[in-house]
Amino acid sequence: MSPLENDTLLRALAREPTEYTPVWLMRQAGRYLPEYRRTRARAGSFTALMRSPELCVEVALQPLERYPLDAAIVFSDILAVPDAMGLGLSFAEGEGPRLAHPVRDEQAVARLSLPDLSALEYVLQAVRKTRRALAGRVPLIGFAGSPYTLACYMVEGAASDEFPTVKRMLYSRPDLLHRILEVNAAAVADLLNAQIEAGAQVVMLFDTWGGNLSAHGYETFSLAYSRKVFASLVREAEGRRVPVILFTRGGGSWLEAMAESGCDAVGLDWTVDPRDARRRIGARVALQGNLDPAALLAPPECARSEARRVLEAFGPAAGHVFNLGHGIGPKADPDSVAAVVDEVRTYSRKIRAAR
Amino acid sequence: MSPLENDTLLRALAREPTEYTPVWLMRQAGRYLPEYRRTRARAGSFTALMRSPELCVEVALQPLERYPLDAAIVFSDILAVPDAMGLGLSFAEGEGPRLAHPVRDEQAVARLSLPDLSALEYVLQAVRKTRRALAGRVPLIGFAGSPYTLACYMVEGAASDEFPTVKRMLYSRPDLLHRILEVNAAAVADLLNAQIEAGAQVVMLFDTWGGNLSAHGYETFSLAYSRKVFASLVREAEGRRVPVILFTRGGGSWLEAMAESGCDAVGLDWTVDPRDARRRIGARVALQGNLDPAALLAPPECARSEARRVLEAFGPAAGHVFNLGHGIGPKADPDSVAAVVDEVRTYSRKIRAAR
Repeated sequence: MSPLENDTLLRALAREPTEYTPVWLMRQAGRYLPEYRRTRARAGSFTALMRSPELCVEVALQPLERYPLDAAIVFSDILAVPDAMGLGLSFAEGEGPRLAHPVRDEQAVARLSLPDLSALEYVLQAVRKTRRALAGRVPLIGFAGSPYTLACYMVEGAASDEFPTVKRMLYSRPDLLHRILEVNAAAVADLLNAQIEAGAQVVMLFDTWGGNLSAHGYETFSLAYSRKVFASLVREAEGRRVPVILFTRGGGSWLEAMAESGCDAVGLDWTVDPRDARRRIGARVALQGNLDPAALLAPPECARSEARRVLEAFGPAAGHVFNLGHGIGPKADPDSVAAVVDEVRTYSRKIRAAR
Repeated sequence: MSPLENDTLLRALAREPTEYTPVWLMRQAGRYLPEYRRTRARAGSFTALMRSPELCVEVALQPLERYPLDAAIVFSDILAVPDAMGLGLSFAEGEGPRLAHPVRDEQAVARLSLPDLSALEYVLQAVRKTRRALAGRVPLIGFAGSPYTLACYMVEGAASDEFPTVKRMLYSRPDLLHRILEVNAAAVADLLNAQIEAGAQVVMLFDTWGGNLSAHGYETFSLAYSRKVFASLVREAEGRRVPVILFTRGGGSWLEAMAESGCDAVGLDWTVDPRDARRRIGARVALQGNLDPAALLAPPECARSEARRVLEAFGPAAGHVFNLGHGIGPKADPDSVAAVVDEVRTYSRKIRAAR
């Protein structure tokens, strides 16, 4: 393996001082980039793209060619796991993902079992090849969906505003949901450990739907299982700690609990006041976030000034990784993304100098 | 006016001791009730129902015939205000509301003006008639959408997952959004004062979409204008204080600021831990909430035990109004609603007795 040229992200995640605030963007390889849309068109479908390690490398590297980002993230989809469980993933054009065989009753839950990692070999190939292609330029982030977020799709069969089928199961047959979550936690831990072995230097757990739970439900059905995942992870590879980031969209009320879950960093969505988060969490973990992704719909100078506001709110203290508060949308302006990344690099140096 | 027989809600909102925890449910008059669906069918459309003060009385009283609720809420829609501004409200079957003339550019914003209250006379008629029909049984709640939430619909033209048009305006032309919010704040204050004059004994501001803002954005574009509304309200009528409730869905991170906005009570969505809310807000204001509305999709005994959990989390201290953390959905089971209301009445007495 090539030595790591830029370890700013890893140092920030370890809450060590850095010369500037490292930056990467959730869904930085995505539809807002014309070059991504071209690769996806060549692949024929999102599923074909996701299953081609070569094309995954190509799209994972595209944003790094445009912007001086401090990390790459493996190109994949959190639903690779339920797909490997045999639930039949597809993406209808212009709609979200669908699972052909949702897990809604006792029988379906009983049939559920841990997927063989061979069914996820394409993800691990993408990790290995992307790591090789990066050649030490920046660290590579691996990821998975949280056990609860995967369960949301597995029970509902698709994305939803309110996930009524999941909620009905949660309140009327919590035993079934717990069984699904047990399987998911083991599957996610296996996949993340395999990604680490394949070369991922950071791993992130995306709890996209945890925010639809009550406080008690979040603890019981989401965080308890994320904790199990964290407890099962290999935390060192190549002589370095492999930091773990936990992001729960809508988790602003539960930051203290998230910080104590065994992760190294908590991802903040855009609704959280960074000063407030620091005050509540202290220096226990690093923080990642949290520009409103909608700021990238505005012209570059507007997006730039919003990025500055976020940097000021986090201040110069160690342990901040700049990111969005949620994934980049397909209508983000690539020039506004450029302005934001540039502002993070330059303004965070200024803040440190003025300290 | 008939004397008020049941003032439990008013006493709880004033943080005075009550024999049990008062309960009402956001959207308690709604599609989950077969009798509501029949009235709506008779009206022909939601718009016709909303514009008929007689039918509004009918549906506002329906849930009180079924359940021992401690309040009625005027039947209306927050979009009556933009409709009165001439933006052309309609409801397509199975879809959400539409505004035919969204306010998206400088010209449209310049044309915007305060609606004449005569265009909202049907809302005030509904207030007067519902108050009369209640004959002092329970207090009547009036309401309006928050200036920001109204602006979301006015700019976007419809509900949306992420309100990209609103966000683009917010980040690129904040001056236009501020102008809309100024007009909205004045219109909402006028409407709420008129509702109070017509007989509303409590008023509530629904900030359904405030939670899509960043912390800074919430302060600047939502709370600042809710504060203006509160500052303009007549706070006493018929020799009693008219308490004001502020509800922001997704506002869990901002409870302290909400509590200091000039309202008498803060509505909590279902993601907030009530113990945490009490700790953060103290006794400055009353709290309203916060059962997950999805608990009403489960059988009565499951919903009942979830209601008990919420009551325990709030504890026996004065100043709690039981409610959902968001409006009742159309698929709620009326029997589960009955179980929840019954549990609140009986279990909250037990908690007080055991104190």
